[in-house]
Amino acid sequence: MVVKVAINGYGTIGKRVADAVTLQDDMEIIGVTKRRPTYEAKMAVKNGFPFYAADEEFIKGFEEENITVKGTLKDLLQMADIVMDCTPKKCGYKSMYEEYGKKAIFQGGEKHDLTGLSFNAMANYENAIGRDYVRVVSCNTTGLCRTLFPLDESFGIENVTAVMIRRGADPWDSKSGPINAIEPVLKVPSHHGPDVQSVMPNLNIQTTAVKVPTTIMHLHSVVVRLKGETTTEDVIDIWDKTPRVKFVCSKHGIKSTAQIMELAKDLGKKRADLFDIAVWRDGVHVVDNTLYYYQAIHQEADVVPENVDAIRAMCNIESDKMKSIKKTDIAMGID
Amino acid sequence: MVVKVAINGYGTIGKRVADAVTLQDDMEIIGVTKRRPTYEAKMAVKNGFPFYAADEEFIKGFEEENITVKGTLKDLLQMADIVMDCTPKKCGYKSMYEEYGKKAIFQGGEKHDLTGLSFNAMANYENAIGRDYVRVVSCNTTGLCRTLFPLDESFGIENVTAVMIRRGADPWDSKSGPINAIEPVLKVPSHHGPDVQSVMPNLNIQTTAVKVPTTIMHLHSVVVRLKGETTTEDVIDIWDKTPRVKFVCSKHGIKSTAQIMELAKDLGKKRADLFDIAVWRDGVHVVDNTLYYYQAIHQEADVVPENVDAIRAMCNIESDKMKSIKKTDIAMGID
Amino acid sequence: MVVKVAINGYGTIGKRVADAVTLQDDMEIIGVTKRRPTYEAKMAVKNGFPFYAADEEFIKGFEEENITVKGTLKDLLQMADIVMDCTPKKCGYKSMYEEYGKKAIFQGGEKHDLTGLSFNAMANYENAIGRDYVRVVSCNTTGLCRTLFPLDESFGIENVTAVMIRRGADPWDSKSGPINAIEPVLKVPSHHGPDVQSVMPNLNIQTTAVKVPTTIMHLHSVVVRLKGETTTEDVIDIWDKTPRVKFVCSKHGIKSTAQIMELAKDLGKKRADLFDIAVWRDGVHVVDNTLYYYQAIHQEADVVPENVDAIRAMCNIESDKMKSIKKTDIAMGID
Amino acid sequence: MVVKVAINGYGTIGKRVADAVTLQDDMEIIGVTKRRPTYEAKMAVKNGFPFYAADEEFIKGFEEENITVKGTLKDLLQMADIVMDCTPKKCGYKSMYEEYGKKAIFQGGEKHDLTGLSFNAMANYENAIGRDYVRVVSCNTTGLCRTLFPLDESFGIENVTAVMIRRGADPWDSKSGPINAIEPVLKVPSHHGPDVQSVMPNLNIQTTAVKVPTTIMHLHSVVVRLKGETTTEDVIDIWDKTPRVKFVCSKHGIKSTAQIMELAKDLGKKRADLFDIAVWRDGVHVVDNTLYYYQAIHQEADVVPENVDAIRAMCNIESDKMKSIKKTDIAMGID
Repeated sequence: MVVKVAINGYGTIGKRVADAVTLQDDMEIIGVTKRRPTYEAKMAVKNGFPFYAADEEFIKGFEEENITVKGTLKDLLQMADIVMDCTPKKCGYKSMYEEYGKKAIFQGGEKHDLTGLSFNAMANYENAIGRDYVRVVSCNTTGLCRTLFPLDESFGIENVTAVMIRRGADPWDSKSGPINAIEPVLKVPSHHGPDVQSVMPNLNIQTTAVKVPTTIMHLHSVVVRLKGETTTEDVIDIWDKTPRVKFVCSKHGIKSTAQIMELAKDLGKKRADLFDIAVWRDGVHVVDNTLYYYQAIHQEADVVPENVDAIRAMCNIESDKMKSIKKTDIAMGID
Repeated sequence: MVVKVAINGYGTIGKRVADAVTLQDDMEIIGVTKRRPTYEAKMAVKNGFPFYAADEEFIKGFEEENITVKGTLKDLLQMADIVMDCTPKKCGYKSMYEEYGKKAIFQGGEKHDLTGLSFNAMANYENAIGRDYVRVVSCNTTGLCRTLFPLDESFGIENVTAVMIRRGADPWDSKSGPINAIEPVLKVPSHHGPDVQSVMPNLNIQTTAVKVPTTIMHLHSVVVRLKGETTTEDVIDIWDKTPRVKFVCSKHGIKSTAQIMELAKDLGKKRADLFDIAVWRDGVHVVDNTLYYYQAIHQEADVVPENVDAIRAMCNIESDKMKSIKKTDIAMGID
Repeated sequence: MVVKVAINGYGTIGKRVADAVTLQDDMEIIGVTKRRPTYEAKMAVKNGFPFYAADEEFIKGFEEENITVKGTLKDLLQMADIVMDCTPKKCGYKSMYEEYGKKAIFQGGEKHDLTGLSFNAMANYENAIGRDYVRVVSCNTTGLCRTLFPLDESFGIENVTAVMIRRGADPWDSKSGPINAIEPVLKVPSHHGPDVQSVMPNLNIQTTAVKVPTTIMHLHSVVVRLKGETTTEDVIDIWDKTPRVKFVCSKHGIKSTAQIMELAKDLGKKRADLFDIAVWRDGVHVVDNTLYYYQAIHQEADVVPENVDAIRAMCNIESDKMKSIKKTDIAMGID
Repeated sequence: MVVKVAINGYGTIGKRVADAVTLQDDMEIIGVTKRRPTYEAKMAVKNGFPFYAADEEFIKGFEEENITVKGTLKDLLQMADIVMDCTPKKCGYKSMYEEYGKKAIFQGGEKHDLTGLSFNAMANYENAIGRDYVRVVSCNTTGLCRTLFPLDESFGIENVTAVMIRRGADPWDSKSGPINAIEPVLKVPSHHGPDVQSVMPNLNIQTTAVKVPTTIMHLHSVVVRLKGETTTEDVIDIWDKTPRVKFVCSKHGIKSTAQIMELAKDLGKKRADLFDIAVWRDGVHVVDNTLYYYQAIHQEADVVPENVDAIRAMCNIESDKMKSIKKTDIAMGID
């Protein structure tokens, strides 16, 4: 069975999920939607994706730019097995998906309550099996789950304090700032802690966050008090075996998020994406059962393989999380 | 008695200390030194400071730019009671000051061992009384001491975890970056923790640090586990009474370091300096005896009043720390 | 006679004009207005300006923040001789000023047609004498008029091509970008050329503009084909005698806008403002009657003395432009 | 015949040229050199390029990082038909290449005099045929030649004034700034004009340049006085037919260099490179025979196809410039 996947919202996440799905042999893109005749719309067509208007009102705009639409979202939904909702948060499409009786995956901008299941492949793949509605958590939450879940499994976590140093805007966004300021999230603890708990309910985690003038990656400074005794080497060993966690090292010239993104360019994925969480190997330090580490998050990319796994779980293609993760990663060239 | 103060190195810190000393009635600037005939050198002369070459070799450069020098550092030292060493770190002038039998104050770029006393006015003014060599700690350490010392006095501190989000370059520095990256300090815990301990030896503090593309302020995200029971209001009360700590508030439009620096402009100090540590009042939260707060550090300015107090202590003008702090602050317009 | 000046809009420009007027002996601030109880509002009160709500609806907001208002804009207008409209563009207050029979000065965000006179002190002071409504042109246009008008007077200008490299956001603005992009103004020639012509109608000038990720200054790269024969030295001589044009020089360490703003800090004006246009002396080159130069514009400040002169002309205090300019500049410490 | 190409310096340009050569069927990479065991070195090995130390002294460093070297640059040169010198400027390898009797291509950081021929495929391919030493001009010069040469051919150019708004650092460079300043190149006219003339000797061109805080692209604001009468449409027609010039349009959402780089990501080239010069179609305006336009330069990529063409010319594989350009572009996916 090849699962028929619709993408509602061919933007930053939607276009990446579309490409990732295309690389799998057990699912296919049957169409993507968009609202405005932007260069991204033109590229969707050029890249061969069946193209639909998100709503009838947008058809005229596409026609004026000579973009042929195959129909509207509603036409697309009828043919789909599952829809990836990659629209901006709170667009409120869920009732339409329900009306058409279609499974749907939402992104991390939505609230947990929308689906009742917040998803990270390593942490709770099993819970998504056969489910109708799932929310893949945000890039930052995905990053925290990727490194914290295996620690909790192996050593037990007493508590976590994490500071998110967040990019101010995505690389394509030339409107948002700040250009020259640091902006703290004054609601403390920030929402990231509870969001991680939506995936790992028993984790004791506090987070704060600041926004800084960079576009390329988020960076997390994380302090973990571990239950069991452990060493820096033990922690590195665990992460070495963890999928979608990649070590980088300052002695090889990777001293900032700039060089991580350059490494991603050399790795050769489309759009120079990095689907792994990058952890500085020489920034991992265990002192008296307290673990310090830094990780960097490619905010546009890390959730993409999680979306693929979520499809597989929800559509009952694969019941074993490690098999799904491995299949996804091999197809996407993640090693 | 009016203490005769020499400034060795009329740069970012030196010029500010020169102005701050000039505002006091118990000390005066008898001269400043510089190496190169820059606009700062020209402004030193224009501002009326007796001007000296840091060394004979630099005289020619000044003459070529029509800057008249009154002599060299050695000439200046002979007349001074105390010298403020505001040179870049590791310039190694201490032996010269010793040779001339002059007291000296060094800045936070130097190691603690150079003087054996790392100074913050609130935390250890008494230890500097009559002393020959003192190091005023760095802007970040000063900021942490300002807010942590009164907490420790009032409630007792179990431990502190602080993340320094550091500016990449000073506002005048157009060479350094990063333009678009975040760079972690991989040595963990970072040097800031031990540096705070050079002032507050019994404090249990761990720090990490990242460099970000901003020029105007550092920002600290601090988590403090307090010994005694307390509330958000209690903490705010303590800081309200603490000199050189100033509350800012997002509901008045101060949402980032950008608006703090704009507030500083409106406050009207020379160079739009902010000598206080700015703490977001609505970012202070006590949850289960754990205190979260954000503070912002004007890296060029916060240490300046500390330098004035250090002069007063070392030259035996005032033995009561609160009297010195108050005198300094009134003269400098810090309220 | 001391002219009674009201400030409608105590923001970036309004607060600076308020301070500049206060420094003059022939005019005074009788009140300032604001809409929201921000830190700027609090500073207006702290700085002693009679404080008014821009409209009745805003009074409650001020009261909630314990800011006492003396009345509304309408109360303030009744007592004023002239009102400085420093509100965001297109707020549309002109009819209210007319209704109250008050002279008014608008800022460069408004269209030329609103007042029929676009003002720059050197270029057309005379035209503003006794006039009821005047628009002081924008920071960029002011900068171009300052350097081009004396050139045109002395040598005659064949044509001008100027590229504005514009700051993306003001220093206090942490919302706008771009963080990491360059954005051209695709309407070519840009509006800056016609805007200069609103002051110097016979000037042949074409402009283009790009927005870049900096907050502190605009920079202009200007090419002028001169009518008469001239030399680099001749041009420098002219500007040396021109008020509000200041030379900076890379050999003194001023290599970018960063060091210009640092020089402004050392010059000691409130808010570290630079009211002059900064021209790189070693960036002035005449080759075959073509003049190349770079100038930098402190976007928040350069128009402020022009506003003062405009008051003087419109209220018939002084008929000689050079006398007004000199009086303004001495009071503001511009040399 | 398949030309054997050596890459000396597998860095920003070297690694891209290596990939571009690999895509051609008439040339192949026989080895690449590097000095330090960085992540780029590891990626060269991972990507399958025979790996050599730039000099014997560097072998130990590679061995310590488990990077096996096949020999040194000298070993590599013996087997090569041509060497691409992608080392930092002024490394001075030319005499070694001469000693080994090998043809060599240098990059735009070198002076014109080093080779006597500065190369741009469209402008002077013929001159490189059979030649031993060629310099491919810099990214900015390449960009100017790409758009100006066809204009000059079609309409004749009276003169050109161009302002280069240059990125402050490359995306991977987290050391250089400025973070928040604009820095003009005070030498006027800047070196870019003469550099274009090294390719197009009869062109009357003046340039100025400023450095701004962005990492992703340079942007040029260009004004061209044309000899013949023409229209905006005529100019657009010419560039539509010109290889390696690509139109972008603000109405499709491309308003800054940020969206151009996003488009490049969607185009799917390795490293998200854009080998074309991007010209804003709606920023092209002809007014009275004066043409205004903006173009953006992907500084790491635009010279890469020129290097491929230079190999073909120098090694006598193809004598027709348009055939070489087309072959290069098809292989690299440039359309």
